[in-house]
Amino acid sequence: MTELPSTPAAQPRVVILGGGFGGIAAAQALAHAPVRVTLVDRRNHHLFQPLLYQVATASLSAPSIAAPLRHMLRGQRNAIVLMDEVARIDVARREVELQRGTLRYDWLVVATGATHAYFGHDDWAESAPGLKTLDDAFTIRRRVFTAFERAEQEDDPAQRQAWMNFAVVGAGPTGVELAGALAEIARHTLPREFRRADPRQTNVMLLEAGPRVLPSFVPELSAKAQRQLEKLGVQVLTGQAVTAIDRDGIEAGGKRIPTHTVLWAAGVAASPLGAQLGAPLDRAGRVQVQADLSLPGHPEVFVIGDLASVQSDGHALPGVAPAAKQMGRYVGRRIAARVAGKAAPADFRYQDAGALATIGRMAAVAHLGRWKLSGILAWWVWLGAHIFFLIGFRNRLVVLLDWALAYFTYQRHARIVTGKDDDG
Amino acid sequence: MTELPSTPAAQPRVVILGGGFGGIAAAQALAHAPVRVTLVDRRNHHLFQPLLYQVATASLSAPSIAAPLRHMLRGQRNAIVLMDEVARIDVARREVELQRGTLRYDWLVVATGATHAYFGHDDWAESAPGLKTLDDAFTIRRRVFTAFERAEQEDDPAQRQAWMNFAVVGAGPTGVELAGALAEIARHTLPREFRRADPRQTNVMLLEAGPRVLPSFVPELSAKAQRQLEKLGVQVLTGQAVTAIDRDGIEAGGKRIPTHTVLWAAGVAASPLGAQLGAPLDRAGRVQVQADLSLPGHPEVFVIGDLASVQSDGHALPGVAPAAKQMGRYVGRRIAARVAGKAAPADFRYQDAGALATIGRMAAVAHLGRWKLSGILAWWVWLGAHIFFLIGFRNRLVVLLDWALAYFTYQRHARIVTGKDDDG
Repeated sequence: MTELPSTPAAQPRVVILGGGFGGIAAAQALAHAPVRVTLVDRRNHHLFQPLLYQVATASLSAPSIAAPLRHMLRGQRNAIVLMDEVARIDVARREVELQRGTLRYDWLVVATGATHAYFGHDDWAESAPGLKTLDDAFTIRRRVFTAFERAEQEDDPAQRQAWMNFAVVGAGPTGVELAGALAEIARHTLPREFRRADPRQTNVMLLEAGPRVLPSFVPELSAKAQRQLEKLGVQVLTGQAVTAIDRDGIEAGGKRIPTHTVLWAAGVAASPLGAQLGAPLDRAGRVQVQADLSLPGHPEVFVIGDLASVQSDGHALPGVAPAAKQMGRYVGRRIAARVAGKAAPADFRYQDAGALATIGRMAAVAHLGRWKLSGILAWWVWLGAHIFFLIGFRNRLVVLLDWALAYFTYQRHARIVTGKDDDG
Repeated sequence: MTELPSTPAAQPRVVILGGGFGGIAAAQALAHAPVRVTLVDRRNHHLFQPLLYQVATASLSAPSIAAPLRHMLRGQRNAIVLMDEVARIDVARREVELQRGTLRYDWLVVATGATHAYFGHDDWAESAPGLKTLDDAFTIRRRVFTAFERAEQEDDPAQRQAWMNFAVVGAGPTGVELAGALAEIARHTLPREFRRADPRQTNVMLLEAGPRVLPSFVPELSAKAQRQLEKLGVQVLTGQAVTAIDRDGIEAGGKRIPTHTVLWAAGVAASPLGAQLGAPLDRAGRVQVQADLSLPGHPEVFVIGDLASVQSDGHALPGVAPAAKQMGRYVGRRIAARVAGKAAPADFRYQDAGALATIGRMAAVAHLGRWKLSGILAWWVWLGAHIFFLIGFRNRLVVLLDWALAYFTYQRHARIVTGKDDDG
């Protein structure tokens, strides 16, 4: 058995799985505790997920929204970062088996998040990429910009239009952001650059099975978001459950729409590691934790972030960054208190800072306490919040610069296509 | 047969294959000629190749050195850009067969460049990636930063050192740049971030079969470059022909060195399309063209850039960006003159602007006419030249900002690992 951390052997070992918002917050909350922290992630970077759609739609380059985990924790001497994948969690033996080595723990924080789910239609994954990782973003970028290239080469008008039809499935915040960005690309970024295809003929469809866009917002803001989307040129199709997707089209509401570019923003499923913890799961596969975020029967194991099913003040917590961060900080502090022999903090309570969704240029909706904003004002709030929370001085500066230039020029500097689809 | 360009049918058709420095220069030189230009590239972007090593070594993000071809030519109304791959060139029938369609031409410019070559050891490609495309740069970035991650996880000291041994094969400008950057990463960027591995123990080896580094420079500057490399911590091994490479080591000069990270900068071979033109090739597979860069017996076909074997003033032209640009401009002007019925310009003559190679922080060599520079002064010349020639206002600004921040912080912001090696 490989004992990985090299810090004093007498101190309790805290293993944190996942370097997202929750895992990083937990590690940082333990910075001054007499523990050995091991943070494991299969990727080497923390991702600022709220801006991932901008990498997918070529407004930002990947390094602008990603920071190496070990760089983020470089000053925290009690923490070690391992890039590895979890093979198995054994809560009875207090062990985590990685692909290269095994970790024993005294405290475990599971923060491995969620991924997109196709509700039993896994064959749709190939035709309708979702957006969770940088590699997903590159795939979407490649599909979108290659579609316009193919349109330019196509002689047959119907075929050409099929390459300029884009379907976004799911009208939550990610779907709304993607659809808005696609409409802007078609209308403002590309028109002057094509000679045969006319990108203004692009048809961006936002398909939603439910009755309205942004279902987690109040109906009043959903209606405003829909109006803003339509003003940008997005065709909003609510009450349209998707029944089939392949590389040549999508079927919804009994109608087939020819398109080669479907983006999936309809559903998430919790990380499969949750199922190894032996606790009850909710319908989305999330682990039902106690009020202190610990696993029933295992006060030394915590589940946080998108993988946790938590009620706070009678509401289910949303799967957003602020919730994950708050859970991480809470759990870190709780472990620190217990290790120090102090009274543990009271049960976890979510501080709702509000909800924000951006739609496009100067278009957004925001619900902050009693305030319901839309349009330009909401967009400024969104901009400020996202710049503020972006990691690191350089990133903020570069993102601001990119946005400022894009604002005045309508350009998207990251419009490069790399990698390959296996199917061409 | 698909006739792709949609501009007036009476005008002569110029087909340009390849959107590198040569192809773009040729297209731009035809901006005001009464011709229909079709530029074909299998990628959607022009790449500023001289800075590609900085993407590989995480100093720059990919979009900073790449620009969409159709964006570059958006204002040139007589030009159309196609993203497609060339399947076959038929100079007798004046046709270029693409994967999707066929192009007829009146004038053809072949500017498909070169790729790395393993001198008959194609099995080395998997273990020793070269650096020609953005995808190559991502592969090198992934291998380099994953190697340090694996070192951090390794218990056995010998195994750990193997992960911190890096071999760069070939000491031309690219090999020198890569080796210098690796040494800086090991010494300055990473040390504080690891707990078990000590990146300062990294061993960067630069292997060269010939007697000195930078063989295309004068011996005096080669010696200075070698001293600067050694000061950075690079182990320079000249006169060491590589005899074997696999995923666990490299064999050179009869000795085996354990390493999992070998980078290939040793050789290039011309694009295989050259062989379809029916003209004699040189040893590197380059097409031996006439003094006006045309194909013998085919005054309507030109070969330029790294694919062309050209003598100017009794010297063979180097495979560098300025040479490709000058050839592209020359050929564009020549076609324009012939189409206008004017006298064709005199034979092509290369204007040698000098040679530059960078080694690392404040370290470079430059040979400009009578001036031989090294160290800080050469580095400033290199910096100025590369900033000046970078495409587009945004890129210059962002690159400058990245470099300034990196200079003061020693950080490399693009240290994110994406994608996957198939072999794990």
